[in-house]
Amino acid sequence: MDAEQLRENAHKMVDFIADYYKSLESYPVLSQVQPGYLRELLPDSAPDRPESLQDVLDDIRQKIIPGITHWQSPNYYAYYPSNSSTAGFLGEMLSAAFNIVGFSWVSCPAATELEVIVLDWLAKMLKLPDQFLSSGQGGGVIQGTASESVLVVLLAARDKILRKSGKRSLEKLVVYASDQTHSCMQKACQIAGIYTENLRLLKADQNSNYALTPDAVSEAISSDLSEGLIPFFLCATIGTTSSAAVDPLSALGKISKANDMWFHVDAAYAGSACICPEYNHHLDGVEEADSFGMNAHKWFLTNFDCSALWVKDRSALIQSLSTNPEFLRNKASQEHTVVDFKDWQVPLGRRFRSLKLWMVLRLYGLENLQHYIRNHIKLAEEFEQLVNSDSRFEVVTPRTFSLVCFRLLPQPDHQDDGYKLNYDLLDAVNSSGKIFLSHTVLSGKFVLRFAVGAPLTEETHIKAAWEVLQDQATIILAEI
Amino acid sequence: MDAEQLRENAHKMVDFIADYYKSLESYPVLSQVQPGYLRELLPDSAPDRPESLQDVLDDIRQKIIPGITHWQSPNYYAYYPSNSSTAGFLGEMLSAAFNIVGFSWVSCPAATELEVIVLDWLAKMLKLPDQFLSSGQGGGVIQGTASESVLVVLLAARDKILRKSGKRSLEKLVVYASDQTHSCMQKACQIAGIYTENLRLLKADQNSNYALTPDAVSEAISSDLSEGLIPFFLCATIGTTSSAAVDPLSALGKISKANDMWFHVDAAYAGSACICPEYNHHLDGVEEADSFGMNAHKWFLTNFDCSALWVKDRSALIQSLSTNPEFLRNKASQEHTVVDFKDWQVPLGRRFRSLKLWMVLRLYGLENLQHYIRNHIKLAEEFEQLVNSDSRFEVVTPRTFSLVCFRLLPQPDHQDDGYKLNYDLLDAVNSSGKIFLSHTVLSGKFVLRFAVGAPLTEETHIKAAWEVLQDQATIILAEI
Repeated sequence: MDAEQLRENAHKMVDFIADYYKSLESYPVLSQVQPGYLRELLPDSAPDRPESLQDVLDDIRQKIIPGITHWQSPNYYAYYPSNSSTAGFLGEMLSAAFNIVGFSWVSCPAATELEVIVLDWLAKMLKLPDQFLSSGQGGGVIQGTASESVLVVLLAARDKILRKSGKRSLEKLVVYASDQTHSCMQKACQIAGIYTENLRLLKADQNSNYALTPDAVSEAISSDLSEGLIPFFLCATIGTTSSAAVDPLSALGKISKANDMWFHVDAAYAGSACICPEYNHHLDGVEEADSFGMNAHKWFLTNFDCSALWVKDRSALIQSLSTNPEFLRNKASQEHTVVDFKDWQVPLGRRFRSLKLWMVLRLYGLENLQHYIRNHIKLAEEFEQLVNSDSRFEVVTPRTFSLVCFRLLPQPDHQDDGYKLNYDLLDAVNSSGKIFLSHTVLSGKFVLRFAVGAPLTEETHIKAAWEVLQDQATIILAEI
Repeated sequence: MDAEQLRENAHKMVDFIADYYKSLESYPVLSQVQPGYLRELLPDSAPDRPESLQDVLDDIRQKIIPGITHWQSPNYYAYYPSNSSTAGFLGEMLSAAFNIVGFSWVSCPAATELEVIVLDWLAKMLKLPDQFLSSGQGGGVIQGTASESVLVVLLAARDKILRKSGKRSLEKLVVYASDQTHSCMQKACQIAGIYTENLRLLKADQNSNYALTPDAVSEAISSDLSEGLIPFFLCATIGTTSSAAVDPLSALGKISKANDMWFHVDAAYAGSACICPEYNHHLDGVEEADSFGMNAHKWFLTNFDCSALWVKDRSALIQSLSTNPEFLRNKASQEHTVVDFKDWQVPLGRRFRSLKLWMVLRLYGLENLQHYIRNHIKLAEEFEQLVNSDSRFEVVTPRTFSLVCFRLLPQPDHQDDGYKLNYDLLDAVNSSGKIFLSHTVLSGKFVLRFAVGAPLTEETHIKAAWEVLQDQATIILAEI
């Protein structure tokens, strides 16, 4: 390790990476390798002697890249996006170079302080209530993923209620969410020891556009209370994973407050859109929430991972997650004049993740970020119109953000209700390597998800994607 | 976002970073800023319009770097190291550029397969038993930190025993470790809902060089069994955080097996040394373990974060941590022909972290890595000799790896037993900005920890550090 050796090799790597981006569209978006492909190509053990960077780069080109699913391809529409950007990438470089471990303020004051400041900035862009800002009892923190965000607030809520009701009442604690809620809610419950049978994933169907209905929640709570159970946590989603459904925050928030429950709002994907005034109304009612999360690493040009979480009462988090070993004691922490983010998260160690978010906000600015979001939503609208213009297809749920849920209509008088048809269509387009979509099932229907959100996606890509879908549909329908 | 814009700006960032490394020794190692310093220097909200990279880089130089504690400085001896290296840094760059999210095999086959292969390589370098390799029922996985490693195996163990004893027996589950075990064990128990009073942090003192004694564990287990409790988890450490103590694996492993408990070995720091044949004997008995962890991001030239965890029975992890939502279903996963690492960890999303570890292993090779470890241990030996050569000081525990625990001896007939003296010495040397050490308390003694492990540290730095310590000691002793 030597500064000049680092300089020389890192310049080589920059060119390798820029060349990768230039050639991105030449690769199949979804990797076409078979399970176990890499084992055949690599030796069984690490080398005794050093190999050259050139050898490693050659292997990356020949052996690794074929196994990569190219999330940065403009033809990537699967799941939700994972944005890379010049600013985000530069932030990652810098963070890897400093390579600090920011568990406590003292271990790297700039890392903690920049994180506090930048999450205040982002909270203001989202027009979150002041109680989520660091100036009061709350504040923001960067978690790795939305899974960790929901886990830490569930733990805070669990321990808060158990302090009142006694720890043996764990078996009575009940969590509420819709059946459209991300699976990380279920996983958080598994980890926190919430009884599986006490997780109420309430049915949300087409009648509410797959949003959780306040009536369903109220009924479930009443029923649970009558059985002596303890409702303590409600999770609402702004932009569900399947169909970008939006749960009604105001009504749900009121129910939570009335029952003294923790109310978490998961806006992992669609939170980004709420920096635009015309989409911010989806957050109406967030003032009732105890915690709110959005993933800057999805659709906000900030490289993975960077999941922003805000809480109104940071002491609840800290009570659940703090430890105070002697080897970490220091004056600043003892005097309680600083934030120690180790007590807001599961791990002890943490990267300097605020750098990349800060660089994204500064190098792009609010107006460009709004433009970025609006452009993707416009592209999704165009795709939706294309689907609507072809009578063989249907849009399955109304589009709200940049996700279009659609399917090929079942053939009349055919035994397949459309499930196999769309499964096959998905398989065909993804196997072409030209585009990559993923799927969901809504009310028993196998549905294709077209999520616009890769930074390089332009109108031409949308049109080309639609042609691939139309062509494959023609082939599949002809074969029936 | 455009490949040529990325290229141009990333080249600038490479030079900024190489220049940072060149000037590293000119900064105070421990940041000397006061709490809240950055709030004064930055605006209250994000800009509406884009700013230039030059402005951002200027701010990093003027506002961020003063708030950084320089973990990469050759004069950094605090906590345990967090290594950056050319290979690790290049791996981070590449991983940020691909910016994939490798939750399932299909979401990026190369990420999953390279991780499986590289952890097999590393397991072989550590001479772990074959049951930890991916070819059997076990395998390795990269977690973010040792905290997450111990949490996931605790959850696997918890759920395994609860499947037998019934989930209402949670309150009877008991965990054993020494009082020298890292605080992440306590935190994992808090998260998993293990009752606080059922965490046995058994006293380890100078008689065993702060290692956990098998007798203490056996006695505690007998006593708990007689009270109807259920011993289920034992954690041993190779290289504790305070003093790099080594717990006796063979004896502890036998006790675990005899009592049908999960046995975890945490070698977060000292695991790296075990790639050298002369240190590998510290792992004798690891064949009794159910899980084993070491942090490649500490003392192994792999940038943070990269915590390697191996288990013998991956199905136990998967049973605790899997979810199977429709939107992630895919052929490869359904056919069980692949590994889906989402089910081995807390978060869903995951970075392509195996790239950097693979590059470290290839660009340095086993022999250089062994040399790297041996050199640091030699430097620690030299420091130990320097301490021994000054009768005002004492080495507090025998040195095993690259950590020296020492203190200034208390003055005869002085009311201070050495606690304040050493606290003041630590404060003085860290305030000088010339070196950064941290501390611990062993048997009531305030002890300074000198952990050699920064990649740039050479013999001259060790000698200079010792001079700083001697000079400050002289000043402090004169003031008494």
